[in-house]
Amino acid sequence: MALIVHKYGGTSMGSTERIRNVAKRVAKWARAGHQMVVVPSAMSGETNRLLGLAKELSPAEQTAAMLRELDMIASTGEQVSVGLLALALQAEGMQSVSYSGWQVPVKTDSAFTKARIESIDDLRVRADLAAGKVVVITGFQGIDAEGHITTLGRGGSDTSAVAVAAAMKADECLIYTDVDGVYTTDPRVVPEARRLSTVSFEEMLEMASLGSKVLQIRSVEFAGKYRVPMRVLSSFTSWDIPIDEEAKSGTLITFEEDEKMEQAVVSGIAFNRDEAKVTVVGVPDKPGIAFQILGPVAEANIDVDVILQNVSHGGRTDFSFTVHRNDYQRTLDLLRNQVVPALGAAEVAGDPKICKVSIVGIGMRSHVGVASKMFGCLSEEGINIQMITTSEIKTSVVIDEKYMELAVRALHKAFDLDQAAA
Amino acid sequence: MALIVHKYGGTSMGSTERIRNVAKRVAKWARAGHQMVVVPSAMSGETNRLLGLAKELSPAEQTAAMLRELDMIASTGEQVSVGLLALALQAEGMQSVSYSGWQVPVKTDSAFTKARIESIDDLRVRADLAAGKVVVITGFQGIDAEGHITTLGRGGSDTSAVAVAAAMKADECLIYTDVDGVYTTDPRVVPEARRLSTVSFEEMLEMASLGSKVLQIRSVEFAGKYRVPMRVLSSFTSWDIPIDEEAKSGTLITFEEDEKMEQAVVSGIAFNRDEAKVTVVGVPDKPGIAFQILGPVAEANIDVDVILQNVSHGGRTDFSFTVHRNDYQRTLDLLRNQVVPALGAAEVAGDPKICKVSIVGIGMRSHVGVASKMFGCLSEEGINIQMITTSEIKTSVVIDEKYMELAVRALHKAFDLDQAAA
Repeated sequence: MALIVHKYGGTSMGSTERIRNVAKRVAKWARAGHQMVVVPSAMSGETNRLLGLAKELSPAEQTAAMLRELDMIASTGEQVSVGLLALALQAEGMQSVSYSGWQVPVKTDSAFTKARIESIDDLRVRADLAAGKVVVITGFQGIDAEGHITTLGRGGSDTSAVAVAAAMKADECLIYTDVDGVYTTDPRVVPEARRLSTVSFEEMLEMASLGSKVLQIRSVEFAGKYRVPMRVLSSFTSWDIPIDEEAKSGTLITFEEDEKMEQAVVSGIAFNRDEAKVTVVGVPDKPGIAFQILGPVAEANIDVDVILQNVSHGGRTDFSFTVHRNDYQRTLDLLRNQVVPALGAAEVAGDPKICKVSIVGIGMRSHVGVASKMFGCLSEEGINIQMITTSEIKTSVVIDEKYMELAVRALHKAFDLDQAAA
Repeated sequence: MALIVHKYGGTSMGSTERIRNVAKRVAKWARAGHQMVVVPSAMSGETNRLLGLAKELSPAEQTAAMLRELDMIASTGEQVSVGLLALALQAEGMQSVSYSGWQVPVKTDSAFTKARIESIDDLRVRADLAAGKVVVITGFQGIDAEGHITTLGRGGSDTSAVAVAAAMKADECLIYTDVDGVYTTDPRVVPEARRLSTVSFEEMLEMASLGSKVLQIRSVEFAGKYRVPMRVLSSFTSWDIPIDEEAKSGTLITFEEDEKMEQAVVSGIAFNRDEAKVTVVGVPDKPGIAFQILGPVAEANIDVDVILQNVSHGGRTDFSFTVHRNDYQRTLDLLRNQVVPALGAAEVAGDPKICKVSIVGIGMRSHVGVASKMFGCLSEEGINIQMITTSEIKTSVVIDEKYMELAVRALHKAFDLDQAAA
């Protein structure tokens, strides 16, 4: 008998018919002798509907008081889901009880609309499990020290599920979603992409942060911090597939280095076309320029991703970085109006039509030449590399957006991702 | 400066456009210097939508665990409303904060779907009012001693508003609704029906319990118990009508006997076609028969309204009572299968096509002949009276359903309700 946490996304909860199927699947696990905690998302479309209503009525200024009300409103979507799922479980003959974030309680800080979980009190949930109940807990939300409802931000239900699993020391946290696992790359770009049966936590973290939309990155961080075994699997299989088969399906996110020895050097290709590149040209090369350029950018709440500073020629250098495409124009204005005059730089150039392509693999740590193989492959395809950034387990390049699919397909092939058995 | 509670029904909250108008109206009152607490219902249709989803998934058996989940689900409708209204108030430039029942907290017993309010802690709300905020509180819901969400049953938001007003010793509780006050009778039946500018609490209680749908009866009981001045008025006036005019509109429910001296003997005609009549025929007339008949009925959770036992002839009597029409068949079956055999009665007769018509007026206390005038009026119209029941301030008759409109119109005229100035 194990303690298992299931998380179901909004699509899986999208209708009463689908909720009934979720209940049947959970009941199957409970009947197999497992203690079950379930974290469902709001029914698909519901959070957007609620926030749409809120947007029509919101004041122009985004104050904490306003964000507090957004959380009050948005959190109801998950509350409806847990109640409906508990009813469906009862209809399946299970004992079941649902809890809102504040009832568990899931304690968070007071950063409305993007709160962080501080602690989870599992006393109540444990008592229910011991009494044979399936416990259904709202994702996405908690309560702050003053008793206000908070939400964790978009995709927060993944984080809730992992946090609950961590707090309860669950044996496994199963994230049911509309894809059947983590792939070597997006199958819509490379039809030969393969599902990975396991992926290391660190690789998953890179893939999530590099634009693979399977899991919310904070949930992966949480899983890593508390070493919660986490599995991504499909909610579109028939609910009555044999439990042994289901328990091995999807992709397991592991923490055991040993298991990786046999794996490929590169596990996957991630990509992201949400970024834009800006370059401050002709910056006087003296100490502190990075801070003088990026300080005002950070103050304007603009996130910076890749940063690149070349060696200087004649006492002047170029300083480039990437930002989210939504922040592109704002960044250009800021640099032109504030930074360039203050710094005595020559000008600002920018390009919103770029993308970032990355190879990710824990095996890169112990294999030399992986990055150069990547550059060689892109060169053969005639793709010019604009920026490069590396970490222990990934190498990213910024290239022209129009080459994105070509680059991903070429790299996928070059690293034999369409062949090796994972 | 007064402390004022506003309550808005689902229709008034039916769209973001209407919510914006509610906010403008509340802001007008706040700007006039009043401390404002607002209790809005769920957006119209929302509670039905939520309970519809729940019904599709509910187990066949109605357990406490199931009812608990219904409350978890249904309570979200009001939570969305308070958040949206607080946002709309902020957009109007007011400081505003919303609270769910559990956040106030509004403490109730654990009777899910029909809980009763036990206490309201007004500490938090008072602090917000003192800080200049408009406080928006969910109607319809509370929290029990174990931290479960409860709801008060249909129309419970009226009760919530009055309970909040009572707990805070508010100067007045204004119930905004889709009618502009309490009428002498339903204007759809009698076009000459007049709006009453005041009505006594006791009359309102009788009218509410006799089928007038303007206010939920429990809210009137609450208002009476705590002597909360309560006004029913229209939410369909323009939000910017002068506040002095608005403050005098609608119908005030009063507790001052003096004000009644000048009033008509009869204040209104109520009617109700939700009932059915059953008669146990040929009951041996001995002590305890009322209990022997109504005991099993009460055990089956069937509410009994009018009860009538005639004098006996030859040691046998007939025992009649009315129940809600939805309980009619169940009552007949129960009497036939359990009561008649146990009692040795002759048979059970019934009639679902009846209605109850009542004259209500606090002046009846001090005026003789009011009941006989009623009977005379009905006799003139050739309407046969099947049952009669009276209290200090009302006289009700049960008649054939088909005469209902005729009876109401005739009585309205006979008691000069279409003429006197209220």
